[in-house]
Amino acid sequence: MSETPDSAVRTYIQRHRAAFLDDLVDWLRIPSVSAQPEHAGDVRRSAEWLVAAFGETGFPVAEVWPTAGAPAVYAEWPSDDPDAPTVLVYGHHDVQPAAREDGWRTDPFEPVLADGRLYARGAADDKGQVFFHTLGVRAHLAATGRSAPAVHLKLLIEGEEESGSTNFRALVEDNAERLAADVVVVSDTGMWSETTPTVCTGMRGLADCEIELYGPDQDIHSGSFGGAVPNPATIAARLVAALHDADERVTIPGFYDGVAPLTDAERELFAELPFDEDAWLAAAKSHGTLGESGYSTLERVWARPTAELNGIGGGYQGPGGKTIIPSSATLKLTFRLVAGQDPGTIEVAVSRWVANHVPQGIRYDLTFAASTRPCLTPLDHPALRSVVRAMSLAFDGQKIRFTREGGSGPAADLQDVLGAPVLFLGISVPSDGWHAPNEKVEVDLLLKGVETAAHLWEDLATALG
Amino acid sequence: MSETPDSAVRTYIQRHRAAFLDDLVDWLRIPSVSAQPEHAGDVRRSAEWLVAAFGETGFPVAEVWPTAGAPAVYAEWPSDDPDAPTVLVYGHHDVQPAAREDGWRTDPFEPVLADGRLYARGAADDKGQVFFHTLGVRAHLAATGRSAPAVHLKLLIEGEEESGSTNFRALVEDNAERLAADVVVVSDTGMWSETTPTVCTGMRGLADCEIELYGPDQDIHSGSFGGAVPNPATIAARLVAALHDADERVTIPGFYDGVAPLTDAERELFAELPFDEDAWLAAAKSHGTLGESGYSTLERVWARPTAELNGIGGGYQGPGGKTIIPSSATLKLTFRLVAGQDPGTIEVAVSRWVANHVPQGIRYDLTFAASTRPCLTPLDHPALRSVVRAMSLAFDGQKIRFTREGGSGPAADLQDVLGAPVLFLGISVPSDGWHAPNEKVEVDLLLKGVETAAHLWEDLATALG
Repeated sequence: MSETPDSAVRTYIQRHRAAFLDDLVDWLRIPSVSAQPEHAGDVRRSAEWLVAAFGETGFPVAEVWPTAGAPAVYAEWPSDDPDAPTVLVYGHHDVQPAAREDGWRTDPFEPVLADGRLYARGAADDKGQVFFHTLGVRAHLAATGRSAPAVHLKLLIEGEEESGSTNFRALVEDNAERLAADVVVVSDTGMWSETTPTVCTGMRGLADCEIELYGPDQDIHSGSFGGAVPNPATIAARLVAALHDADERVTIPGFYDGVAPLTDAERELFAELPFDEDAWLAAAKSHGTLGESGYSTLERVWARPTAELNGIGGGYQGPGGKTIIPSSATLKLTFRLVAGQDPGTIEVAVSRWVANHVPQGIRYDLTFAASTRPCLTPLDHPALRSVVRAMSLAFDGQKIRFTREGGSGPAADLQDVLGAPVLFLGISVPSDGWHAPNEKVEVDLLLKGVETAAHLWEDLATALG
Repeated sequence: MSETPDSAVRTYIQRHRAAFLDDLVDWLRIPSVSAQPEHAGDVRRSAEWLVAAFGETGFPVAEVWPTAGAPAVYAEWPSDDPDAPTVLVYGHHDVQPAAREDGWRTDPFEPVLADGRLYARGAADDKGQVFFHTLGVRAHLAATGRSAPAVHLKLLIEGEEESGSTNFRALVEDNAERLAADVVVVSDTGMWSETTPTVCTGMRGLADCEIELYGPDQDIHSGSFGGAVPNPATIAARLVAALHDADERVTIPGFYDGVAPLTDAERELFAELPFDEDAWLAAAKSHGTLGESGYSTLERVWARPTAELNGIGGGYQGPGGKTIIPSSATLKLTFRLVAGQDPGTIEVAVSRWVANHVPQGIRYDLTFAASTRPCLTPLDHPALRSVVRAMSLAFDGQKIRFTREGGSGPAADLQDVLGAPVLFLGISVPSDGWHAPNEKVEVDLLLKGVETAAHLWEDLATALG
C-alpha cells in the first residue's frame, strides 16, 4: 500500500527529526548578534554555517552575500520545469543580544531541549523558522519523488534584521535580477497561539520623522519673559496634541487618503479569533486601551494607521525645577501605515501640516528617516490559498484563521523592489519570547512548520502554474 | 550761607566717593559664589567683611547670621526717636559663578574701573546695591546733623540668593521678632534704563509643579501595540496643550480668581515707558511675541499670571529613531502669579485640573515644590511716594516712572512672614549684565543710589511717622 503524500511527508520528517534538531542546536550555538560589534565574527560564522547546511540539503547554489554590514546568505534550487513559478523565501540568521544576567535560566547560546521546547536565543526568531525550510524541501522531494522542487526555490537569509536592516534594501536592489520571484514567502512571523493556527496577511508600513523646534537663542528667564514669547516646548506639545481629534483620529489633512477600508468579511475574520483583552493588555504591559473610535483593539493595531509619539524632550529635565523658557524642543514621531498609504505622500502631508501649525517666532527643522511601505495579501490571492491548504494539512485539517502584524519589516522592501506579493509563513507563538530572556520554540510547532513548507511548493506550483 | 539738605547730601557723597569705591572694590574681590561649594569659605569671608564694613559705618549692631547653608549678615541702627518707623533693607552678598573663559574681558574678581563703569561679578547684583546703603546712611546723618538715622534701620543681607535662597524663609521665620518692620526696602532690582529712572512696584509670585505620567510598565513596541493603548508622552503633551485657550489664556478653572485687574491708570503708566519691542525681543533672544490677548508685552510679563512649561521629557531622545510607546513622561511647569493669587489655591486648582485631564490607563504623580507669593505696592502707598521723592531728588527732579518685575524673589517671604509691605529701590540697568560675563555698574547711577538712600530715611520718617 503506497503512502498518501501527506503521510509520506510526515513519515520522512519523523525519520529525520533528531538530525534536524541536532543541526539546529549546532547553529543556535553561534551567537550571531548583529547589533554587537564584538560578535561580527560570529555573524560571519553563522552565514558560513548556513551556506554549508543549504549545500548539504541539496541546494545547487548556496553563497554568502557580503554587504557593507553583516553578510546575508543566498541559496537557490531551480525546478526541473523551466515554466514553474519562482518563490523567494525571506528570513534572517542574526539574533537579538542575550546575556545570562538578563534573566535567562540557561545559557542563551547553549540550547536546552526540555518539555517539548527548545530554549535558545534565536530558536524562534528566526533560526528555527529559517531552518525548517531545509528539512521541508527534503520532505517535499521525498514525498513527491522529485529530484528538484516543484517551484524555482530561492532563499535570502539576512544578517542584519536585528540591527535595523541597514543594508538590506541596497542588497535587494543590487541583486534584483537574481532575486526575481513570483511570490515572496516571509518566515519571520508567528501564529495567534499554540491552539489557533493562523496566517498573517499583512504588515503595517512606517514613516518616521523628527521635528526640532527652536525658540529663544538660549534658555531664557521665565520670570522676565514668560507669558510674552512663544515657548518651543509648549509648541512641540501643541503639535502632538493637535495630531489627533477627540475620536483619536489623525487630523493631518490627507492622512487617510487611499486607506483600504476594513471589509465586513475581514472584520468577521478578526472577530473569530479568541481575543482576550485582559491578556492582550498584560502582554502590552498597559493599564487601559485608547484608540480610534469605531474600531476594536485588534483592528486598531492591525488595520488602522497611527501617529505615535516615540520621544519628546525640551528644557530642563534634571531633578528639581528650573525657571526657564527652553531654547529648543524635539519630537520623534512615527506613523504606522496600512495598505493604500504611501510613505512619500504621508511625508508631504506631515510637512504641510507642521508648517501650518508652528507659530511665528518659532523656527523648526523637520527630517524624515527611512520609511517602510505597508504590505497586505488579498484574502483571495491564489498563493495565500496555497499557504492555507499547506498549513491545514500540517495541522490535521484544523481551520486556519487570519491575522495581521502591527509592526513593519523589511519584507516590504522585497515587495517594493521585486514587485512580488508577500506571504507569511510562521509557526512561532506569542509565548516564544522574541527579544526576551528564555526565548524558545515549541518543537511540535517547528515540525509543523517543516511539514507546511513540505506541502507548500507542490501546491504553489499548481496554483501559480 | 547754609547748604540745602540735598546739596549737603551731594557734597558729602562727593567727598567720600573715592573711599566708598575703594571699599566696594575690596569687597568685590571676594568671590562669594554661593552655588559652588569650593567658594563656601569665600562666602563666609564676604559676610565677615560686610559685618566689619557695617561696624565702621556706625551700625551699633552688625552680626553674621549662620544658616544651614551660607551665612547672612544682619545690621541694626535704631533711631533716637523710639516712635520712629522701622525699615528693613534686603539685599544679598553672594554672587553668581563667573570665570574668565565665559567671555569676561577682565578677571571677574579683579574689579576694573573704566569709562565711568565698575566691572566685576556682583558690581550690580547685588554688592553695589547693598553697599550704597553704607555711604547713604552716613550722608543722611551728615546732611541732617543727626547722630542716628531718622528711622529704626535694619539690614538683612542674604548669602544664598544666587543658589535658591534655600534657608532664607526659615531664617526670617526664626528671627521674625528682630526683623519686625513697618516697611521692607529691597535693593536687588533695577531701573528701566540709564535715562529713565523708575521704581519697581511689584514682583510676580511662583507655584512650581512636576507631573510624572506612567503608561506601560516598560517601553513597548509601537508596531505591535501602537494605536490601541494610551501613550504617556502624548498625554503629557495634551496636558500642556490644554493649559491655554486660543487667546493664550490659562484654562485651569479658578486660575484667574482674585487676580487684581490692571487699572487704566496703571496701563497708562506702563505705556509712558519708552518701550521698544525689537530691543526687548533682542534682550529675550527671541524671534516673536506670543501671549494673552488684550495685553501688551509689558503687561503680559509684569501684570498677568502665566502657565509655563520649563521642561518636558519622555521616551527616546537619542540620535535616530526608536519605535516605542514610552513607559513614562515628565512635565515641569511653573505658574507665575500676580497680586490677588495665592499659590496654595493655585495648587488645588492645578491638582483638580490634572485629575480631570488624565485618561484611564495612565497613572501619575503630581508634586509641588516651594512656592513664592506675588507682591505689589499700591501706587498711592505713602512709603512708595517717599521712594519716588527721594529718587527724584537724586535724579535732579526727573520724573520717576513705575515698572514691575516679572520674576519672583525672596522679598515675598519678607512680606509674608513680617506682614510688611515691600518697596523696591534699585539703580541697576538692563545693560549691567546680571548673571552674564562683564557684569558692571554705572558709577554715576551707583552714587545716585547712595543719594536716594540718603534722602529716603528722613522722608519715610515723616511719611510713616
